[in-house]
Amino acid sequence: MKILVCNDDGIDAPGIYALVLALKEIAEVTVVAPITEQSAVGHGITMQIPLRVLKFNKNNEFFGYAVNGTPADCVKIGIRNLMSEPPDLVISGINHGSNTAINIIYSGTVSAAREAAIMDVPAIAISVTNHSAKNFQYAGKIARHLALKLFKKNIPPGTLLNVNVPDLPENEINGIRLTKQGKSKWDDIYEQRTDPYGREYYWLTGSLLEVDTDLDTDQASVRKNYVSVTPIHFDLTDYETYENMKNWELENLLNEKSKYPSD
Amino acid sequence: MKILVCNDDGIDAPGIYALVLALKEIAEVTVVAPITEQSAVGHGITMQIPLRVLKFNKNNEFFGYAVNGTPADCVKIGIRNLMSEPPDLVISGINHGSNTAINIIYSGTVSAAREAAIMDVPAIAISVTNHSAKNFQYAGKIARHLALKLFKKNIPPGTLLNVNVPDLPENEINGIRLTKQGKSKWDDIYEQRTDPYGREYYWLTGSLLEVDTDLDTDQASVRKNYVSVTPIHFDLTDYETYENMKNWELENLLNEKSKYPSD
Repeated sequence: MKILVCNDDGIDAPGIYALVLALKEIAEVTVVAPITEQSAVGHGITMQIPLRVLKFNKNNEFFGYAVNGTPADCVKIGIRNLMSEPPDLVISGINHGSNTAINIIYSGTVSAAREAAIMDVPAIAISVTNHSAKNFQYAGKIARHLALKLFKKNIPPGTLLNVNVPDLPENEINGIRLTKQGKSKWDDIYEQRTDPYGREYYWLTGSLLEVDTDLDTDQASVRKNYVSVTPIHFDLTDYETYENMKNWELENLLNEKSKYPSD
Repeated sequence: MKILVCNDDGIDAPGIYALVLALKEIAEVTVVAPITEQSAVGHGITMQIPLRVLKFNKNNEFFGYAVNGTPADCVKIGIRNLMSEPPDLVISGINHGSNTAINIIYSGTVSAAREAAIMDVPAIAISVTNHSAKNFQYAGKIARHLALKLFKKNIPPGTLLNVNVPDLPENEINGIRLTKQGKSKWDDIYEQRTDPYGREYYWLTGSLLEVDTDLDTDQASVRKNYVSVTPIHFDLTDYETYENMKNWELENLLNEKSKYPSD
């Protein structure tokens, strides 16, 4: 099995190191990851500036490629140019911090796995629920077992698994749950500050409004010390609203009377 | 009606100018947009550096705020800090270039509207299908009529409308269609080049593989000279796969026999 590993915390982060060590036992691993931290970059790709690729050696324990781009860039260039043949699987992580609920939208870690899914390669994004997590060994084990499971079970092209692992010792984990994306989202606050030159600036902060209570959601599961596994895809069509909008008669949009002169 | 206008081509782009002029007739418009072009930034948000906000005046025809961040940042800080009360509607665009099919994932324009939907504000993303588009007047008219329609019809919280307008004179447009996200995606190519110092770099290019033929998709509709209107949302759960994965028995994942010693 050939696995491409990526992340958004940067190629030298502890999480990706633990992931590679966990996967080396079962696969030939190629690491292509950002040179620097790329958290919350969403599904950005780099088109305005060129990409540079540097060879990277982590204590002779793994070799890889560091890219001056986003996680999605790394997966694209890894599969298109750096690997001699496409991988059987892409795993992105282990992320330092949760990627549950609305964080799925902002996450660079998830975008790397989503880019793989767009390229028809099965993919997993895996995160530990604490930005200061120290121990990634259990999450690495989950990743290894899920990789083997995916090999047996398959998932449809265009689907990826988003996995969140509570930052706890293995014996305090309550189990592993199949989940849906939760609805919790951020209560953003922009802190207004003044720089040393007297100019104003804003810094984003805030807290997650936890509205999920159903254990079938990722956010409630990790809060109750379960590992969550959520299948996600990139078809964003809201099919229910699509059906409801059939009575909007959009084809007549410009024929409607309006009180505004230029209509 | 109060409308917040954003884009990803930058606050001084012709598309956003045409949009503001079209909307001023029906609403009080506040513009909060990136200082520089932010195409293909996906749903990135800025957390590692502070945001600066500059007042912007376009020929005394509109006043707004230019932000050194992403489209999603602009919507967040616009609603949280710069507007005295939340807008009734956010419109992002008019984008220079299509945001159909897979481009929805990469688009900064769509991410601004999606951020509004996350904040429970109805939203529209609107694009013209040509990077070199010159005439945005017809797209502006579509935006104005859709804004009025949304006011009457509502859409559920968390849904936004993604609109694509062929770059044609109005009399060559075949009509307006309710659509779904297409499946067309990019055949990426990284051009390998050598810089003036002899170092290699890569530049992303490629072409869209047009696989959509059904006029119910955004991509096929715009190719056949229809305006497409697609309701999208940010619940990424793949519900079909979720149901199918119930037989995976994930709760037993770590109990399965494996030939690998550390399992």
